[in-house]
Amino acid sequence: MQARKSYQVSSWDIVFPNDANPLGTMFGGKLMAIMDKLSGIAGARYCGRPCVTASTEAFIFKHPVKVGDRIETIARVVWVGKTSLVVKVDVYSENPVTKKERQQCTSGHFNMVAVDDSGMPTEVPPLLIENDLERQDFEVAEIVKKQALLRKQAVQKRTGLTK
Amino acid sequence: MQARKSYQVSSWDIVFPNDANPLGTMFGGKLMAIMDKLSGIAGARYCGRPCVTASTEAFIFKHPVKVGDRIETIARVVWVGKTSLVVKVDVYSENPVTKKERQQCTSGHFNMVAVDDSGMPTEVPPLLIENDLERQDFEVAEIVKKQALLRKQAVQKRTGLTK
Amino acid sequence: MQARKSYQVSSWDIVFPNDANPLGTMFGGKLMAIMDKLSGIAGARYCGRPCVTASTEAFIFKHPVKVGDRIETIARVVWVGKTSLVVKVDVYSENPVTKKERQQCTSGHFNMVAVDDSGMPTEVPPLLIENDLERQDFEVAEIVKKQALLRKQAVQKRTGLTK
Amino acid sequence: MQARKSYQVSSWDIVFPNDANPLGTMFGGKLMAIMDKLSGIAGARYCGRPCVTASTEAFIFKHPVKVGDRIETIARVVWVGKTSLVVKVDVYSENPVTKKERQQCTSGHFNMVAVDDSGMPTEVPPLLIENDLERQDFEVAEIVKKQALLRKQAVQKRTGLTK
Amino acid sequence: MQARKSYQVSSWDIVFPNDANPLGTMFGGKLMAIMDKLSGIAGARYCGRPCVTASTEAFIFKHPVKVGDRIETIARVVWVGKTSLVVKVDVYSENPVTKKERQQCTSGHFNMVAVDDSGMPTEVPPLLIENDLERQDFEVAEIVKKQALLRKQAVQKRTGLTK
Amino acid sequence: MQARKSYQVSSWDIVFPNDANPLGTMFGGKLMAIMDKLSGIAGARYCGRPCVTASTEAFIFKHPVKVGDRIETIARVVWVGKTSLVVKVDVYSENPVTKKERQQCTSGHFNMVAVDDSGMPTEVPPLLIENDLERQDFEVAEIVKKQALLRKQAVQKRTGLTK
Repeated sequence: MQARKSYQVSSWDIVFPNDANPLGTMFGGKLMAIMDKLSGIAGARYCGRPCVTASTEAFIFKHPVKVGDRIETIARVVWVGKTSLVVKVDVYSENPVTKKERQQCTSGHFNMVAVDDSGMPTEVPPLLIENDLERQDFEVAEIVKKQALLRKQAVQKRTGLTK
Repeated sequence: MQARKSYQVSSWDIVFPNDANPLGTMFGGKLMAIMDKLSGIAGARYCGRPCVTASTEAFIFKHPVKVGDRIETIARVVWVGKTSLVVKVDVYSENPVTKKERQQCTSGHFNMVAVDDSGMPTEVPPLLIENDLERQDFEVAEIVKKQALLRKQAVQKRTGLTK
Repeated sequence: MQARKSYQVSSWDIVFPNDANPLGTMFGGKLMAIMDKLSGIAGARYCGRPCVTASTEAFIFKHPVKVGDRIETIARVVWVGKTSLVVKVDVYSENPVTKKERQQCTSGHFNMVAVDDSGMPTEVPPLLIENDLERQDFEVAEIVKKQALLRKQAVQKRTGLTK
Repeated sequence: MQARKSYQVSSWDIVFPNDANPLGTMFGGKLMAIMDKLSGIAGARYCGRPCVTASTEAFIFKHPVKVGDRIETIARVVWVGKTSLVVKVDVYSENPVTKKERQQCTSGHFNMVAVDDSGMPTEVPPLLIENDLERQDFEVAEIVKKQALLRKQAVQKRTGLTK
Repeated sequence: MQARKSYQVSSWDIVFPNDANPLGTMFGGKLMAIMDKLSGIAGARYCGRPCVTASTEAFIFKHPVKVGDRIETIARVVWVGKTSLVVKVDVYSENPVTKKERQQCTSGHFNMVAVDDSGMPTEVPPLLIENDLERQDFEVAEIVKKQALLRKQAVQKRTGLTK
Repeated sequence: MQARKSYQVSSWDIVFPNDANPLGTMFGGKLMAIMDKLSGIAGARYCGRPCVTASTEAFIFKHPVKVGDRIETIARVVWVGKTSLVVKVDVYSENPVTKKERQQCTSGHFNMVAVDDSGMPTEVPPLLIENDLERQDFEVAEIVKKQALLRKQAVQKRTGLTK
């Protein structure tokens, strides 16, 4: 398969009362769902195949989001294997009324698998990396994947469970 | 504060067509939202204070869940710090019609922070550990936290960003 | 079919602004939907077959539930006929911030029917009753069923309608 | 307060895939929520005050509703006490494509209480009854209320619980 | 096909916190969705066939709706062509607590197309017009359709695009 | 106020079974809600103030959207008055599995009003127009506004109603 470039996919939302937890900030689970949706779109647009989430890593809530804030969710394929890929998803919030500065509120890495019509893993095209930011994102994805593997091995050693 | 035991909090759901993605399996984001909700309940019941999600680690989708499956989500506090705690959340699926065996479909660690009335971190009671399973869960949480710290340091070294 | 014991099925929820009516308390219809879902799960887990709701009786809202309260919904099969069964559903609320004591807010009896693959009623296993609480729940269900029958007869006599 | 006539309040819905359970029929809990909403509107329009649901009786699912069916939900105040009232809610389904005949699929009685600005019960106007159907509905509501009282007494006698 | 009369289809809703935007008024998109649903029901009940929305015209938000308001949405077929029809949808709001007078908050014209089992346009019955209000609604629909055609021609002339 | 350029705001979505009508295509009302949300974001980002929808014009559904399709919704301010502005919203669909070509499925013009903290109309900055596409969009908005005014006058003449 021919290597290809990845393009970011983004989505804007306003935080409605509907999205809030009893503390008046955006329910984290709702944010996770938006990020998972966008991760799937970024993966599928890159591969030309549906992609399913295998795991997430480094899913960090940096700042709470308030009702009335606008958020922009940005997803981009940053690492590619044989049938798997990593989508980095970042969420930024802003608020024109309170003049709150735009800031990153959440980020996460989604490990995804491209599937064929029978739901089995299928090959994905190699990723073209063309600039420093793309190289950095790729290398960060490698670090995240490596630490996840080390964690898995350490957990298995402790528990004796292989799955 | 006096040490206390943690008790599991659980929730049953049926997967409705409403919860499915276009592949006919449960939308991962929906599952994440259920797990986040239950993690918050487990944390708050333990602390007697609302708890907010700071990050998730080792969030793994092992098996897809189908429309019509029943799922049980189980959350329990497994590790406690000064103002933070770790909730382990596991999801199991089963289906009496297809006689599909009960299996673990998803699991994740939620790092949470207890907050006071002004939303600032507040102290949480120490955790009583009384049996082997609780000890294993505690030690696995330590492994997960340690690898997350190593990952953070490696990422910061590569990117030069401290946040 | 061999007699079997019934086990309770439970579910925890937090009341979000999303669940409130304009009075700031939990919308009753939302609570009914949670109870109906859990009743279906309790019935299906007992029978090994999907169960559909035929009617509800004695559906009582004892105390309003506030945004921020946590609720636990508990469902258990308490009575069994040839193809039908009764699931008792109770909802309890609590709030760690306001230190509101745990109290029962809602309860109801669900008359359900087990269905086969073509949607027709199918036989359910007899219920093992082993302690006083189970015996009391069984007898209360008999009272509720008997009064529902008397009501039906009285209504039919007044209206002349047989359905 | 001056007696007044009650007028029916109605609502049309289409059953979307969104509303279905895994059996392909409308989720009962969704139907209950629509009925509770409409009951509250009928009560509030009659009283000029918000009304909350105290209990439901004789809540019967006569026929399942399919995806694609249209349903009409009709609510009307049929009985009035000092601070309480009974709203009868009926649901009818039809389907122009399958030419399924219009039939009653669900019905229920909602016991409601009118509340003042502090949430306490407040007086409701007496009900004008002007024709045979209204008289029948009133008398059926009396039967339903009477049997509910007898049931409550029988249950209390058996359990020893007064609440 | 034989001409037939059209009947209005209506629906009552209460505005829940769930429906509000961050300004505390009802989210316009939610109102549009309710109107589109009711328009489809009015069209389908008239034709005996599913109807899909081709476009909307003159969709006007006259007054904001507040949380706690009750709204009544009324839809009626007011104009009929060979395979298309126009449904006029009006929304009225009221509030018994604030004693806000009933007022029209929103209105719109929905151009719909009746479809057969393969999704292709299918013939609709001619419309019986029997009184002055029906005649006025019919003629207003003609004005709206005519201006939409003039607009389309003017836009095409400016852009050079025929679609 | 100083003139400013407008930037497009976009959002990606996947059509879930959850979003479908009984015909298996995306419910129009859901699409309208997404477009209204994005229109509000585009307006608010341009003005630095919340914007409410006053009316929509030329809201056209060109092609149905299927479950599994991905849609991109794009909104941009194309015309500006003293306190009002026009946001053009376009929706495109694509499907990598069926290899359906990207096509425009829906478009609409949203007339919005910027509001101050008390909800009253407030001044908006003039719009910088710098290229042919922006000029065309501006002139099309003028055509749409002009025809809406002519329609309003013709309707008022026929009905005698001034509102």
